[in-house]
Amino acid sequence: MIHEKAVILVSGGMDSCILAAFAKREVKELLFLHVNYGQKTMRKELEAFHNIADHYGVKERLVTDISYLENIGGSSLTDSSIDIPLQEYDEKVIPLTYVPFRNAHFLSIAVSWGEVKGATAAYIGAVEGDSSGYPDCRQSFIEAFNRAANEGTKPETRIVIKAPFVNLHKKDLVMMGVSMNAPLHLTWSCYGSEDIACGACDSCYLRLKAFEEAGIPDPIPYRKR
Amino acid sequence: MIHEKAVILVSGGMDSCILAAFAKREVKELLFLHVNYGQKTMRKELEAFHNIADHYGVKERLVTDISYLENIGGSSLTDSSIDIPLQEYDEKVIPLTYVPFRNAHFLSIAVSWGEVKGATAAYIGAVEGDSSGYPDCRQSFIEAFNRAANEGTKPETRIVIKAPFVNLHKKDLVMMGVSMNAPLHLTWSCYGSEDIACGACDSCYLRLKAFEEAGIPDPIPYRKR
Repeated sequence: MIHEKAVILVSGGMDSCILAAFAKREVKELLFLHVNYGQKTMRKELEAFHNIADHYGVKERLVTDISYLENIGGSSLTDSSIDIPLQEYDEKVIPLTYVPFRNAHFLSIAVSWGEVKGATAAYIGAVEGDSSGYPDCRQSFIEAFNRAANEGTKPETRIVIKAPFVNLHKKDLVMMGVSMNAPLHLTWSCYGSEDIACGACDSCYLRLKAFEEAGIPDPIPYRKR
Repeated sequence: MIHEKAVILVSGGMDSCILAAFAKREVKELLFLHVNYGQKTMRKELEAFHNIADHYGVKERLVTDISYLENIGGSSLTDSSIDIPLQEYDEKVIPLTYVPFRNAHFLSIAVSWGEVKGATAAYIGAVEGDSSGYPDCRQSFIEAFNRAANEGTKPETRIVIKAPFVNLHKKDLVMMGVSMNAPLHLTWSCYGSEDIACGACDSCYLRLKAFEEAGIPDPIPYRKR
């Protein structure tokens, strides 16, 4: 084991479920952190979070709320006046689902909690590769934040920010998840619906594409594919 | 004017009031941001925030809540099981009032809001000099976070983190505030009380010391000095 304790950011989506499976191999005690931020599928994601935590027998769980992001707006995920775009995915354009600087909030919470708990790492499932082009999912952001975490905490605190998937493709993630027996059937990725995944939003689109490229069937049902 | 728009982090304390006076000279439109984090003197600080905003005719105000810091704990400011220390101030020790990595949360909110509003700076009144030894008030943290803000936002977003007081002494701050007519009588610094400032917590201690060294009377009343 590399770490005695580490905070794992678990949204309840596919990437964070595989992240938990990955972290499980190098961390003795997983501390699961979930953040509600006023996103439309909040209830469903929280359910997935607890199901994944139960699966891995995680005792320490923290659920936080930063729904002030709704007041800040600027994203179709948190602003009800902006529709969730349907397959608007384009590698060169930052999509409307970008929540301004969101991962900085997530990592700040992870570091604060980690400092109190004596963790030595915080894991985030950010994917720069073929992801949605969010600036806060880039390797360069992760590195800069890692530096900030080091400078902004006590000298004895040593929390390294780990984004092990940042340079992977989602297709490889799916294969890794399956090989590590990650409970992908418990995950929720859809941005648009809380009953059956819509299959049409850009999150569903990227997920379905990843499973297809990996040649593996996605274990969750979709309204349409 | 250097900036068309900038976010100013205003707690309602002395430093942030002087920060507003300072920013007023280089920013056309001030966006005032206040963050409640479950601190014991929340109500009083919010009142001071609005009074200072009224004083400067600030229209755009955002009040956010990150009281999940209470659940994280680790500080006498947010954890009711830890007493606020009385004049425990010691330059070499990080005090119990340190809220783990708090300024990272504040700056994340400032950057998210600033990105949506098209601001080009975010001001924070952190003082490293003779302050309480908080690691997240250091120049090196501010610089690292500035880098993270640059990397983690859209390419067209250019928000610089400004901590103009980071190398000043509180005494100089008081003199600067008075010379810029900052409404210091509207501020609230005490950590321990919400009616009359206690005069005994480390925040009162540092404030009173600063006024004394500056040779200027503090305009707010104290229970004891």
